[in-house]
This record gives sequence, C-alpha cells and structure tokens, in this order.
Amino acid sequence: MVASLKVGIAGLGTVGASVVRLIAQQCAVLGVRCGRKIEVVAATARKRKKRGPDLDRIRWVDNAKKLAADPEIDVFVELMGGDGDPAKAAIETALANGKSVVTANKALLAKHGLALAALAEKNKVALNFEAAVGGVIPIVKTLREGMAGNSFARVYGILNGTCNYILTRMEREKLPFDVLLKDAQRLGYAEADPTFDIEGYDTAQKLAIVASLAFGIRVDERAINVEGISSLSPEDLEAADELGYRVKLLGVAMRTAKGIEQRVHPTMVPKDSAIAQVMGVTNALSIDAHGINPITLVGPGAGGAATAASVVADIGDIARGVRTAPFGRPTAKLVVSKKAPMQRHEGGYYIRLLAVDRPGTFATITKHLAAQKISLESIVQRHSDAAPHGGDDPKSPAKPAPVILITYATTEDAVRRALKAIKKQGVIAGHPQVIRIEKN
Amino acid sequence: MVASLKVGIAGLGTVGASVVRLIAQQCAVLGVRCGRKIEVVAATARKRKKRGPDLDRIRWVDNAKKLAADPEIDVFVELMGGDGDPAKAAIETALANGKSVVTANKALLAKHGLALAALAEKNKVALNFEAAVGGVIPIVKTLREGMAGNSFARVYGILNGTCNYILTRMEREKLPFDVLLKDAQRLGYAEADPTFDIEGYDTAQKLAIVASLAFGIRVDERAINVEGISSLSPEDLEAADELGYRVKLLGVAMRTAKGIEQRVHPTMVPKDSAIAQVMGVTNALSIDAHGINPITLVGPGAGGAATAASVVADIGDIARGVRTAPFGRPTAKLVVSKKAPMQRHEGGYYIRLLAVDRPGTFATITKHLAAQKISLESIVQRHSDAAPHGGDDPKSPAKPAPVILITYATTEDAVRRALKAIKKQGVIAGHPQVIRIEKN
Repeated sequence: MVASLKVGIAGLGTVGASVVRLIAQQCAVLGVRCGRKIEVVAATARKRKKRGPDLDRIRWVDNAKKLAADPEIDVFVELMGGDGDPAKAAIETALANGKSVVTANKALLAKHGLALAALAEKNKVALNFEAAVGGVIPIVKTLREGMAGNSFARVYGILNGTCNYILTRMEREKLPFDVLLKDAQRLGYAEADPTFDIEGYDTAQKLAIVASLAFGIRVDERAINVEGISSLSPEDLEAADELGYRVKLLGVAMRTAKGIEQRVHPTMVPKDSAIAQVMGVTNALSIDAHGINPITLVGPGAGGAATAASVVADIGDIARGVRTAPFGRPTAKLVVSKKAPMQRHEGGYYIRLLAVDRPGTFATITKHLAAQKISLESIVQRHSDAAPHGGDDPKSPAKPAPVILITYATTEDAVRRALKAIKKQGVIAGHPQVIRIEKN
Repeated sequence: MVASLKVGIAGLGTVGASVVRLIAQQCAVLGVRCGRKIEVVAATARKRKKRGPDLDRIRWVDNAKKLAADPEIDVFVELMGGDGDPAKAAIETALANGKSVVTANKALLAKHGLALAALAEKNKVALNFEAAVGGVIPIVKTLREGMAGNSFARVYGILNGTCNYILTRMEREKLPFDVLLKDAQRLGYAEADPTFDIEGYDTAQKLAIVASLAFGIRVDERAINVEGISSLSPEDLEAADELGYRVKLLGVAMRTAKGIEQRVHPTMVPKDSAIAQVMGVTNALSIDAHGINPITLVGPGAGGAATAASVVADIGDIARGVRTAPFGRPTAKLVVSKKAPMQRHEGGYYIRLLAVDRPGTFATITKHLAAQKISLESIVQRHSDAAPHGGDDPKSPAKPAPVILITYATTEDAVRRALKAIKKQGVIAGHPQVIRIEKN
C-alpha cells in the first residue's frame, strides 16, 4: 500500500473550505483514481475561528510559511491570494522544501510565475494552477498537455464573470453601466471596489498565464494592453446586435508577424461564434490551433465548488506522480514577450460618432477615413430624422446624430489618426466610441 | 540527454499521415514540451505504396503485429480501425511486449476496452485514446484527470458530425432526411453505407468510453439503448423550434436511482443550452458534476489534423512519463453496467400525432394520457383549418391534422402505454413520432 498524500492548506475561505469538503466527500473515489489516499492534514488561515467540525478537526498551523515547511505535508495548497507575501514567501518555502504546490492565485502567477516555476523546476516538484484560470474549465491542462502537439495561432476568451454578467444584462435590458454595476455588487457578482474586474485587470492576469502556456512566452502581465468595459453603453450593444455582433470583454493572445500580441478590451464577436453564446457569469476560452477548427471550453469560472474541483484535480495529478513543467516547457525555454503596441494592432473596427447635422459632414468623415486607407464594411445611421448629411430640415438643425461605421481590416494607428483629423474639423460632437472586432 | 521516444504507426490513412507530419513539424517544440525527442521510426499499412517522401522515408514493417513487437519502438500507435483483429491482436502484442499504445479506435475500445486496459495495467504501460472520442476535444483527459475530484451526475454530447450536419441543415433548409443524407454523402460527410453514423452506433461507441470514464463502469456498448435520426422530419424540427428547442442526436449517460442510464437518441434540448448552439459537423460534450454548473467542450470531432492532434498529445504524455489508468481507475475497480431498460426512462416527451378529424378525438387522446398520469406542458395544433376536435367544417372532413404534445416529466413506459391505447381507438393516423427532451 502506497502512503497517503498529505496536504496542507493555507487559506480557508470559500475555496479552501470547498477543497477540504471535496477531498473528504470523494475520499474513496480519489483513492481509486489516483492510486493513493489523499488527506488534508494541516491548515492555516488569517484568523483562527470556528469553521464547522470538518475544518476544526484539521491540525492548525500558525502561519502559511510554517505550514509550507511542515515536515508532515507533501503538498502545499495556497488559497490566500495576493500578488506578493505572505503567499509568495510561503510558496517559495514549500518549493524549497521539496513540496509540490497547488495554487489558484492568478495575481501572484501573473507577476512572479516565472520565478516560482523556475524554483519548482530546480526542486523537481510540481507547481499546478488549473484553478487560477477559468475555475473548473480545464484550460491549463488543455493548453499544457491536451494540445501539446499543436502550434497555436490565437487563444481568446471570456475570463471574468463580472464583466460578462454586466454585458449580458446590458444587452438584454438596455440598462446603463452604472446601474448594472450597482446591481452586480448588490448580488455579490462584483466587489465593493470593482476596478480590478471591470477595468480588465483580472482578465489580464489570467490571459498572461494562458498566453505563456500557448505561446511559450514568459508570463508577464505588463506585456498586456488593457481596457475595461466602463465606457460601453447600451447603444453600442444595440448597434452591435443589429450588425450581427455581440460585445464581450475578451482577453486575446495571438501570434502576429511582430510577435505575440496580448490584449484585453471590449470586443465585437460574430453572433454565431461559440464565444458569443457565453452568457452571464460563465467563462470560456477558444483555442485556434494551426490547421484545425477552433475548440471552445465553456463553464463556471469562479465559485468555491468550481475552483475547488480544479484544485483537487491538481492535487490528484501529484498523487498519481505526474509532474509537468508549470508553463508547459522548462523556464529557460520560455521567451521574453515584448508589449506589442496597440497602434499596430490590425483588425476591423466599430466606430460610433455623434455627427453634427450640417452639410458636408459625411463627406468630411469619409474623406479622412479614405486618407488613412480605411474601407467601410457598413454604415448605420441610428436616427433618420437627424441625418448627418442633410441639414435641409430646419426643425432639427443642431442635434448631432449617431453614426456607426464598421471598417474592414485596418490598423489601430490609422483609425486613431483618422478620428483625430475628423475631430479637428468640428464635424463630430463628444468622443468617438471605438470597439475592436474579432472575427472567428 | 534522455533517449528519444520511438514511435511505430500502424495505419497510414488521413490520420496516420497527419500524425507523421505533425510530429515532424512540431519536432522542436514537442521536444521542449515533453523533455525528450519524439520520432516516428517505423510504420505499416494495408498496402505498401508511394505516399510522399515524408512517409516513404520511414522504415516499413510487413504487418501490424510485427510492428507491435518491433524491438526498436517504444510506443505503438494503432490507426487501422476495426473492432477486432488485426488491430486487437496488434495492440495486445504491443502491450504484452511492454510498449505503450495510443489508439483512435473507438469500435475496438467499446468492445474490448476492458480487456485491453487490464493488459496495459498488467504490463505497466499506457493505453491512451483521446482521439477515439471527439477528435481534438480533450474529453478523455478532462473526465479522467481534469475533473478527477468530481462526482458526475450526467454527461451528454453531440459525438457524431454526420448526424449533426444533417440535423443542422434540416432545421435551416427544411429538407427531408433522404435528400440531406445524399448531400452529406456527396460532400464526404457521410459514408457510402451511412447506417453506422445515422443509426447512432458511432455515437454509442464513443458514449460507452465516456460513460466508463465518468462513472467508473466497464466500457460496454451493449449496455446502451440506441436510436438514430432517420425517422426525423423537418416538421419535427420546426415544431421544436417554435417550442424553444432544437433537436440533436445526443449520447447521454446519467446516474439514476436504478444505475447508470446510457442512451443514444434524437433529443430536444432547450435552444439556450450550450449543446443547442453546436452546429454542422462540430462535436461537443457537456459535463454535469455535482455541485457545479455544467462545463461544455466544443470542437472538431473528426478529420485528420484534429484527430492527429490528440494522438500526438497522447504520445506526448507517454514521452513525459505519465501513465494513467486507461479508464481512470484500475480495471478491477470498474463495475458492471447493466442495460437500463428505456421503458423506465424518466423525462419530458415531445409527441407528434396525426389526429383524425372527428368529434371526440381530442377528448380520447387526453383521456388516455391522463390515465397514465401524463401531464401536458403544451399542445400545438399545426393547422387550425383541420382542427382535430372539430368536424364542423364539411370541406375538410377526413384530413388528419398534426398535433404536437409536450409532456411534463413522466416515464417512457407511460408514454408507450398511452400511445398504444390511443392508437387502438382509431383516433390517430400513422405512427406517432416521439422525441425525448433533455433539460439543462
């Protein structure tokens, strides 16, 4: 009989408690599946308090670093969060002590993943983090192992449930961003300080991990261009709908002639694409590998039970004696990814302008687009009673009318220059809304 | 430097050739990802003929069994197909000789998977078969490893591209089954003898593998209830659409109080479910684990490159030294799955009847449904000018009118008994169409 695998858990919040319970409930089947028993033998958390008999039974250790060095444990599970100490120091201690580590800490991995992977490698132990990206969805495993033979062109996904929840309701109920954010906070889908989620940083941290796995680059969140969803309005989603698109906050990493482009921003995706079907707090990742049609993985990206499922599967791999390079290849083989400037991004664009109602407005707009070699796929005027090219109707002389332009593939630089020139001519009011289009 | 992993391939059709090419193209990155070089050193196929310089360069072996025993190879890749010899004998030879095996052969696994897994176990080698189910979609890996800590309630999916292609076009173009099948054959999406695909047997073989992985039962295609799509008509799909459903050929395995129910049949799924979005030849599997929202994996389920991707990933796992129990647990722990009689299936039903136009017809139908305790969620009469309860209109006295009934959850037994009784009363023409409903 093989000795049981002994687990120590740092962090007993929703996820930590779910991990303890899942291991207890599934004890027998885990033993059969992994060839040895898995048991939680020690734990620590910020506060020592009553948490129910199943958690109180576990041996208590004073702090994470002490737990990480505990001679009884084989695996250190870090569920404290935070992009530095005490989580970082505790993981380093565990790895240096020859213990495998399982973590759900995307923030820490996006910042220090490379150094931690190198330390795991040096000590010949596992560093697993399926739970850090997309909850129970097997994103890490699929990129690292399931498609190990493939070369990737693009990976893109919905990696933040809060944003997708807000955008889903904005599309369906046509309510403004602020109202929906407050509702999401009330329902517990958004934090009191929602910046991290809605401005795209959470998505960026997950994308950094995904991009490293897919393209063999060093995980580095600073290489990512990030824009959030706070500037979006129901008008944009309505216009997108009419044109056959949905708007999603996507994290996109793709191979270009200039290197790996990594970006997080509101994106128009064709309504019939797999990613466009993903609604509410659900997450998804689409993977374009060379020579094959895309695969899409969809599921709950957060929540105690969903995250715990991936933590326990990662522990299971360690129990079965599997050790994979954390980012899919030895750290020395991971290459530096420079931040690709967004100005050089190529693609289609959605542009919403408020055109001033006077003769020649349309001619001015189209002239400056043409000067930047931007071709238009479609033009939609939202209110025909205030036509921007008109001015014949004296009853509505000064009301600017929304105009929506969809461009064929061009560069971001060209779009920015054209809009700057158009603004200078005084033919548009306010700030133009620009949303990038991602084709499937 | 670790010695390279030497691969022998039996079968050089579309998939075999794609495997050879993918390993050659990805040689460098595979070496980095797996920690050792992977090379194809020997091959065999039914006929020795010119196949292009990349394939002709490989050392030729006379037959599969000889290749399986070849002292130079570490891994035997079986891509011959067929549910018995020579594929079976060759795999047995390889396993007995201590070589790991990778296969895409669902037919063989559905029939002899248990014995082959036991042989792999005895010889302490791997038997990997990600490519046998859903092409490049990581279905085996997700059930076997990615969700190793979870207990499953239900797994269900679209596992045959031919059927989904036909149903997608039937829904969109309202063309009858025979026309679409001929078109699918012409386009190469269906075989000359399409029975295996359209009658559900291909789906059943894949479901047998999926069910074993999810529920720890012995793989056995005979335990599956199988119905195909040939009886479906555009009228059914149109009616489903109006009621908020789509019709898909699903393979479903679920835990019930009476054991694991395994079935393949046309199924009505809610239009907003992830599985309903899957169109054309694409495959998908949804996984319901206890306590978490479902995950759905979507992608190309067939084709040389997609299948080769999974074969190569399986070889990659072997190169990295990973060996998992083929069906996720030791064969001795896999339990027998009895065939659950369909009569005891519980769920909602779609019933399409041709009601004879005379007084009392509706009363007769509803009386016999009520006698079986079947409650109706909705009733749709397709042509009001030939109302089945009427008979007042002398201009259309004898034309039977289609009536569509959607039941609340009931048993198959009750539905069959009610329909038999209704038929006996002479109030319906022809054979009633019955489609099971699967809720998400």
